[in-house]
Amino acid sequence: MQLPTLADIHAAHKRIKPFIHRTPVMSSEQINRIFSSDIYFKCENFQKVGAFKFRGATNAILQLTDKAKRHGVVAHSSGNHAAALAHAAAINGIKAYVVMPDNSPVVKKNAVAGYGAEITFCKPTLQAREETTAAIIKKTGATLIHPYDDVNVICGQGTAVLELLEEKPDLDIIIVPIGGGGLMSGTVIAAKGISPGMIVFGAEPVNANDAYKSFVSGKLIPSVNPDTIADGLLTSLSDRTFHIITKNVDNIFTVTEESIIESMFLIWERMKIIVEPSSATTLAVIKENPEIFIGKKTGLIITGGNVDFRKLPFNQIS
Amino acid sequence: MQLPTLADIHAAHKRIKPFIHRTPVMSSEQINRIFSSDIYFKCENFQKVGAFKFRGATNAILQLTDKAKRHGVVAHSSGNHAAALAHAAAINGIKAYVVMPDNSPVVKKNAVAGYGAEITFCKPTLQAREETTAAIIKKTGATLIHPYDDVNVICGQGTAVLELLEEKPDLDIIIVPIGGGGLMSGTVIAAKGISPGMIVFGAEPVNANDAYKSFVSGKLIPSVNPDTIADGLLTSLSDRTFHIITKNVDNIFTVTEESIIESMFLIWERMKIIVEPSSATTLAVIKENPEIFIGKKTGLIITGGNVDFRKLPFNQIS
Repeated sequence: MQLPTLADIHAAHKRIKPFIHRTPVMSSEQINRIFSSDIYFKCENFQKVGAFKFRGATNAILQLTDKAKRHGVVAHSSGNHAAALAHAAAINGIKAYVVMPDNSPVVKKNAVAGYGAEITFCKPTLQAREETTAAIIKKTGATLIHPYDDVNVICGQGTAVLELLEEKPDLDIIIVPIGGGGLMSGTVIAAKGISPGMIVFGAEPVNANDAYKSFVSGKLIPSVNPDTIADGLLTSLSDRTFHIITKNVDNIFTVTEESIIESMFLIWERMKIIVEPSSATTLAVIKENPEIFIGKKTGLIITGGNVDFRKLPFNQIS
Repeated sequence: MQLPTLADIHAAHKRIKPFIHRTPVMSSEQINRIFSSDIYFKCENFQKVGAFKFRGATNAILQLTDKAKRHGVVAHSSGNHAAALAHAAAINGIKAYVVMPDNSPVVKKNAVAGYGAEITFCKPTLQAREETTAAIIKKTGATLIHPYDDVNVICGQGTAVLELLEEKPDLDIIIVPIGGGGLMSGTVIAAKGISPGMIVFGAEPVNANDAYKSFVSGKLIPSVNPDTIADGLLTSLSDRTFHIITKNVDNIFTVTEESIIESMFLIWERMKIIVEPSSATTLAVIKENPEIFIGKKTGLIITGGNVDFRKLPFNQIS
């Protein structure tokens, strides 16, 4: 199994730098006061396509051979990875094919189409997605870019923490959301590579706790019918990300839906930035376990800001 | 009538600098592409208390005599000025009294109370507010800080454009929302003082178009029952702000409620920042008059980001 190294992540950063935004590291005096802690938000909601996924997609595309570039790339996804791949491909003059379930929200269809990808709709089952994708590959010769089980994608995602640590080299703790584990894999390899004593925690909804269960049991346990507002974290680990995470991450904390929503509200209200629920799982870890973070310097990776403003969960907050 | 000068605004900036945030100037490739224009957002939504009002309130408080400081300050307001005055007073160890109508939204009451002001509730009429305020002044000797008809407040508000022009000295046009006209007065004095050829436009909801009507008629016409989602722009000009604006501003554009909401949505969606409707009037001017701004460099003052997330207007957008 091919595993990325810190050097690979540095190389990825050099490669993708001309294409990505250098996103800001923000903090909030008010939030710091609430938790008696120094918290730094690495704001990938300000990344192109509104999510860190643009880093991994760009790195994967730039690593293709010239021949592969001519045949294009394909992904089956309805989320940020599809938009990221479509946009990264378009910027580099490469054709992108995206397979989406026909029940995807209109807002997501429009986003991917707006970035210039050719969309093929299929039934909303994994089998239909895989078959449709295979048919496209057979017809076009396009390269499948997996959203997280891909060394180049993992390296790209790991570049966010390089930038965070350039600005805040003295962090004690880093918290990263875990969905398929690509961001966490890249982050933990980079962070521990730079600073072996750095503590790296995972954040996961208790309603989609496959990484937590896999981490504590030591064997890969996929999600079954995950149901969480953190729609970027529904996917399960792959063998590769499971291996990297089990070997390197210090702990994984699960958080409730209520904590995720309240933390998201807190970030919106106090920081005036739009973050998606998946991102708020990181602050929710601090909210549920404040004693660990008192007096510490903690970096959170804010994964994205793609939210449907017509379906916000804030009415339930008192 | 006392009128501020560019030198006064520079002095105010030096005075308040240790207390305010230096807010970022942001831009969006996507929004620039939509309007074929270079648009720069001076993000006072990231200012303390989430609004530019903190600049003016801080400058007014720092100009008080030591004796006046001991007696505190008072405002009657339910909006950003009250929160700004409360916070600026607290930071400087000064007592703040705020008179609020008893039908103010709970979220605003909590904000002002959270900044440590002593709130007195009254009936929601101008007469009740003024009488209650007069009674507090009589009892405590507190100094009334008007939200915009005050030279020190105007100078404080004018400091935002100083920072914008430090970073983007080659702007062609600046657009500023007009409510009571304090921000516009400070901005136009500073901008024209620095660069006499700079074009300065006002933005106003067509449903609260007192400044527009006053500007075109040449006489001060107050708002009657203004009804707009841009709740920071309900107030009418004072003699002082009317005088400054008529003498200096190049034009005032009115914008529809629909344009305000669509522009606000565009900023949220593409820039991932939270701006209040009043701020979005500036982009709405470009949306309604795009030909003026093609190929130009335009600076917008984003006035604040205080929004009730439970009452968003986005359901009506297609």
